[in-house]
Amino acid sequence: MHSSKTKFSFKNGLSLTEGIESLKRYATNLKGIFSDAKSLEKILEKNPLIYEFYDLGVEEKPGNLAYGTSIVYPGVVGKEFYMTKGHFHTVLDTAEVYLCISGRGLMLMENPEGITEIQELTPGEAVLVPGRFAHRSINISDTEPLVTFFTFAADAGHDYGTIEQKGFRKLVLRTGDGTYEVVDNPNWKA
Amino acid sequence: MHSSKTKFSFKNGLSLTEGIESLKRYATNLKGIFSDAKSLEKILEKNPLIYEFYDLGVEEKPGNLAYGTSIVYPGVVGKEFYMTKGHFHTVLDTAEVYLCISGRGLMLMENPEGITEIQELTPGEAVLVPGRFAHRSINISDTEPLVTFFTFAADAGHDYGTIEQKGFRKLVLRTGDGTYEVVDNPNWKA
Repeated sequence: MHSSKTKFSFKNGLSLTEGIESLKRYATNLKGIFSDAKSLEKILEKNPLIYEFYDLGVEEKPGNLAYGTSIVYPGVVGKEFYMTKGHFHTVLDTAEVYLCISGRGLMLMENPEGITEIQELTPGEAVLVPGRFAHRSINISDTEPLVTFFTFAADAGHDYGTIEQKGFRKLVLRTGDGTYEVVDNPNWKA
Repeated sequence: MHSSKTKFSFKNGLSLTEGIESLKRYATNLKGIFSDAKSLEKILEKNPLIYEFYDLGVEEKPGNLAYGTSIVYPGVVGKEFYMTKGHFHTVLDTAEVYLCISGRGLMLMENPEGITEIQELTPGEAVLVPGRFAHRSINISDTEPLVTFFTFAADAGHDYGTIEQKGFRKLVLRTGDGTYEVVDNPNWKA
């Protein structure tokens, strides 16, 4: 077969296809990602699962597409919501589409010129992350996982390093039940 | 804003974002697509809506992605299930990802070398249609619309003409409640 298929649960976002395992990012994997290092330190012993996603290993050739789900669990590190590392694409000017399956979250986006954009994600909402924009999924629900289905060019590549070194210019902080504020990241490096 | 967002209903697949209208394909638009011309003739007076989908008009530039939903309604023309016209991409070797949101259907695929592939679609199943493969969504449910969410390279283009002229090599016919058979298309043109 040239075509392929993967089944995902609409309940929890996980693969229902045998032999397809997620990549898991625990608190210990996210040092330097959350701004509040002390609060992160406190949860390292329990080391909760912050998010997981799929890399189905499709051929990284021009014209091909990679897809999968991403599941960000509910929680905070200090005031900062659980979120993904965030990444640019190595081929910078390549887009990504995210369809929200369940939960409530934000897509935080930022380009090298310093423009920040934020789109809210609720079930049924599809966001087109334009080329040149780093992007990070943030779960702003106190109770529900944020499940998204993503598609991007299979040869776009992932540049996690830039965000790991510089951070995003903006942080999203919990201010109460279902509310948040967007503030400047004091640790952002030009 | 550089990013954009569209909200789709998970109940019926239709856009919930104001001002976003679907493209509709009625029986009259599908002459020559269904193999049983006499049966199609009989429904032309009522002219039912066979399927609808979205073209959100994203910029057709390299690296960008187009996305939307497709809704194929339940029904048959003779023994042939309601289905989409089907298309190659103009840039032949470009893939497309379909995530089934609701309903039950098939993705019928065929490449210029004559290889046919079929993948079943149930909610949560994502099919990677590889480059070089024409593809058509077929609703095999007697009662439910088949709703899929698709993503493809915005500059891939659509070649509907080849299928309109030649047809697919295979037809999918209803054989009973929830059952079907795949047969050679007697009208297929080499």
